[in-house]
Amino acid sequence: MSNPVLVEVVRGALVESRHRGAVAVMDADGATVFALGDVARAVYPRSAVKPLQALPLIESGAAEKYGFGDKEIALACASHGGEPAHVEVAGRMLARAGLDGEALECGAHWPSHQASSQALARSGAAPSALHNNCSGKHAGFLCVACAAGVDHHGYVKAEHAVQREVRGALESLTGVGLGVDACGIDGCSIPTWAVPLTALAHAFAQFGTGRGLGSERAKSAARIRAACLAQPYYVAGTGRFCTEIMTLLGTRVLAKTGAEGVFCGALPEVGLGIALKCDDGATRAAEVTMATMIARFLPMAEDERGAVGRFLRPTLRNWNGIEVGGLRSAEALSS
Amino acid sequence: MSNPVLVEVVRGALVESRHRGAVAVMDADGATVFALGDVARAVYPRSAVKPLQALPLIESGAAEKYGFGDKEIALACASHGGEPAHVEVAGRMLARAGLDGEALECGAHWPSHQASSQALARSGAAPSALHNNCSGKHAGFLCVACAAGVDHHGYVKAEHAVQREVRGALESLTGVGLGVDACGIDGCSIPTWAVPLTALAHAFAQFGTGRGLGSERAKSAARIRAACLAQPYYVAGTGRFCTEIMTLLGTRVLAKTGAEGVFCGALPEVGLGIALKCDDGATRAAEVTMATMIARFLPMAEDERGAVGRFLRPTLRNWNGIEVGGLRSAEALSS
Repeated sequence: MSNPVLVEVVRGALVESRHRGAVAVMDADGATVFALGDVARAVYPRSAVKPLQALPLIESGAAEKYGFGDKEIALACASHGGEPAHVEVAGRMLARAGLDGEALECGAHWPSHQASSQALARSGAAPSALHNNCSGKHAGFLCVACAAGVDHHGYVKAEHAVQREVRGALESLTGVGLGVDACGIDGCSIPTWAVPLTALAHAFAQFGTGRGLGSERAKSAARIRAACLAQPYYVAGTGRFCTEIMTLLGTRVLAKTGAEGVFCGALPEVGLGIALKCDDGATRAAEVTMATMIARFLPMAEDERGAVGRFLRPTLRNWNGIEVGGLRSAEALSS
Repeated sequence: MSNPVLVEVVRGALVESRHRGAVAVMDADGATVFALGDVARAVYPRSAVKPLQALPLIESGAAEKYGFGDKEIALACASHGGEPAHVEVAGRMLARAGLDGEALECGAHWPSHQASSQALARSGAAPSALHNNCSGKHAGFLCVACAAGVDHHGYVKAEHAVQREVRGALESLTGVGLGVDACGIDGCSIPTWAVPLTALAHAFAQFGTGRGLGSERAKSAARIRAACLAQPYYVAGTGRFCTEIMTLLGTRVLAKTGAEGVFCGALPEVGLGIALKCDDGATRAAEVTMATMIARFLPMAEDERGAVGRFLRPTLRNWNGIEVGGLRSAEALSS
């Protein structure tokens, strides 16, 4: 059984490459609004659930204790580009808890934002864990530990109090029990728990609307959503899909990318959650699929619809800037 | 009709991502030795046919006129990492024809070799067309034009004498007529002509053995092969699959990657050519598929087989160096 082709990559007169995958759109009551492909298969959501993983930061009182505003909370949900402003906010979050970048257990990598990476190289410095795209999330985890007076060492381990809190939030929102048979280790060393796309989409519908959540949790979810939508630059960065689509559509969409072709999101005003995965792990196809779902389910004004067009059919240009092709949703997705 | 899964990406206990595609292994007489998936579908070979595209450089006498050795000829077949030695040889090739980097029409991009890219940024310089992974091929094209006394401007265009020569060589070796309906523009602005995998594999079987070619062409193919196998560093670069597999197996394998998940190669001692494409364009899966084909069809000593293992089942490590999973050939490919 193979998933349908979601996105085609065109060059000249031919389809050069094809991306298969599955998509689920659910409402907060758990009703399936749209499903394509094997939406029951458990997939690792990777970074796409960072907004959910940030719930303990709010619910523990740590965000309040350390005086976090929208930027800090947005960065706790981010897969950021390692731009100077991202690094600065991550460092500030840690400082509030009396820590610095040394406490991060996510590992170091060069900023994915090319200009920032080159500027860092020009300065003669090497990247630190603060440049890791997950440093905001990890700073949040460390703050949860410190606010609770728990030893933060090993906070990335499944058995640490912080990860137990995070797992509890995910289990509660997805309605799925998360055991070791569904556990992988993420790029930043924390556990990633596999969940069916339907459960992820349902979780995001609840997260986006507050429906089906207790009043405290609904308030925490609303706080995280408000932070991401007020400061979308801190959720990803310059030129990035999540930042640009949230900037464009304001409070009407929450969108979060994950590694290996995952995307999750919420459309609060229509009460829907979206979860998708490209089989092959391609981000380019996950983005086109996400844009296609947003355009399909979110009522948009003429000018918004025009602006979303470049996410629906991105142009491919070569090193000389010549248009050589583009991406488009395939029939199964667009029909 | 969907192509079979060739390669699986495992994380924890689950298969996280899957890559589909097609593979053809042919002999020089055009007999199919192995075929998986839709091997009759025309695919853009992209950079995987660079060794074939270098034939006019030898056959025109340009390589001899300008005194090119193995490094220059290997670089004319390269998708290189933009390391200093690559840039130096590309510049030297152009100088022999009285040109410099300004004549290149491939566009500029930062070196794909990370340390070289960072060193370039540290130096305060910007990348030039010499850093483009195709600069050696383009230097070769320019040398063909200059040696023939043809105006080199616009040498990337399909109608230019150089590209007509290149197309002629590809048509002759693949046995496929290449028209505008099968033409795309490559990343470096030259035409890329779509050809079925069977025809590409057959072309590489001939290229690798000389069988079925005229004696002059067989000699030219042997010269190119000898150059690549003598200087595999100049075909790709540090840490790259093509360079490492050719270094490991010496004269017994010619392997050339192409963008969008294409790989071509020849196993001269067993008289075979290989061509494959991953549907989704993923290089990681194309490499595992290529390694699997080499291991299957090339007789290897025990130590060679051991050394090839890391290409057959690459390990995935996260930013902390922790092993989090790996790639492996799927059942359809390994059975």
